Amino acid sequence: MRSIVSFYFCYLLCLCLGIACIVLVTTWNSKWRGGFAWDGSSLQFNWHPVLMVTGLVVLYGNGAVLYRVPLTWGQNKLPWKLLHAGVMLLALICSVLGLCAVFDFHNANKTQNLYSLHSWIGICTTALFTLQWVLGLAGFLLPCSPMSFRKLLKPAHVWMGGSILILSVVSCISGINEKLFFALKGTTNGTQPYANLPPEALVANSFGVLIVLFGLVILKILSNPHWQRQEASEDVSYSPLLQDDN
Amino acid sequence: MRSIVSFYFCYLLCLCLGIACIVLVTTWNSKWRGGFAWDGSSLQFNWHPVLMVTGLVVLYGNGAVLYRVPLTWGQNKLPWKLLHAGVMLLALICSVLGLCAVFDFHNANKTQNLYSLHSWIGICTTALFTLQWVLGLAGFLLPCSPMSFRKLLKPAHVWMGGSILILSVVSCISGINEKLFFALKGTTNGTQPYANLPPEALVANSFGVLIVLFGLVILKILSNPHWQRQEASEDVSYSPLLQDDN
Repeated sequence: MRSIVSFYFCYLLCLCLGIACIVLVTTWNSKWRGGFAWDGSSLQFNWHPVLMVTGLVVLYGNGAVLYRVPLTWGQNKLPWKLLHAGVMLLALICSVLGLCAVFDFHNANKTQNLYSLHSWIGICTTALFTLQWVLGLAGFLLPCSPMSFRKLLKPAHVWMGGSILILSVVSCISGINEKLFFALKGTTNGTQPYANLPPEALVANSFGVLIVLFGLVILKILSNPHWQRQEASEDVSYSPLLQDDN
Repeated sequence: MRSIVSFYFCYLLCLCLGIACIVLVTTWNSKWRGGFAWDGSSLQFNWHPVLMVTGLVVLYGNGAVLYRVPLTWGQNKLPWKLLHAGVMLLALICSVLGLCAVFDFHNANKTQNLYSLHSWIGICTTALFTLQWVLGLAGFLLPCSPMSFRKLLKPAHVWMGGSILILSVVSCISGINEKLFFALKGTTNGTQPYANLPPEALVANSFGVLIVLFGLVILKILSNPHWQRQEASEDVSYSPLLQDDN
């Protein structure tokens, strides 16, 4: 009982942190970076942080802990499998749109793509996430998938899930840090320099801290064995979609 | 047996990655950033990445997985406890010296301290690591520490250990990314711009990727329940230093 109360405390915390992250990234880009457009300008770039954080961090993190919610344990797993896959697909779509936003902006402004360490880690994260989603669909939802493949895939899927979240957090923090150095150059572009910690820098730094906290709370939930869904039998947890009756 | 072979494969991988990280950060700073000094110049700054990566990532990671080495399982735990504390102390000393290097450099050059997101995450990481080390010493090595405190501390110590490693990786990647934008400005400071991916950028980006891989392998080792030291009895694992006989 105490374990379930602790779970819901952590879950509520990650819901609040997730909402706070989306509010802060939207506020930052609308209030200080000029808002949003899809026209190749810097306003199109502003979609990049919003979509990446919403997809690769908030939706991804919430999708990852879905099976840990005790409310779902006594129920048929199939709807939760579909919800897990659906939330992750939405997260993936947001991430791909977020990448389109920055590639379009770079191409329209004749800027090189994929040279910074942030971009290297970020593109690997999205590529791994895409692979994870496709393998998850093939292994856990398609009825034709062989049982041996499911058994092999499950621990790798769980470990890769946590690793992708860590990579997402690393990408986001390096990206926010980079953006603030680009945007707050002081006299060069008529802003207050980053080093003076103007309100924009305080808000964006705090937003970065919240992303890290969100990631750590999600990883805490994922790593607690008491919060794992108890499968009716080991075989059932690997059963194909159309035979899924637990 | 297969589990032990897999462990040693992961362990060898993390040793190689750790050595590669130290070689790459030293090469980067000696070959392209002018080498090292302790005189308030940018050559003093160059100690910052070397000491932080050596301390907060490589030594820290190796210290964290020490109890997981199967070779140590059948033996008296005390020498391994002391080695764990010793390696972590060395890691902490490197980290603090690494912070001194950057603070001295900033102060000598009248640059603000602690304004970037990288610095916020980095200083929190070192502060948490210091707290973790002091609490670890008080809880697991001092014989006067009450058993109830040890039992409470152990899961928090384990979880905080993994979290600090994630924070270290986040700090390092944002720091390397920031440094490369500062250092490779193109015509402004007579370097090839970062966007052209000169050899320095390729080496430093690859170094960042290796740090991430090192962190993920360490977390993989820490998260595998088959690789945890089997304590002789639950009580023994919390026994004070002078009564430690397992």
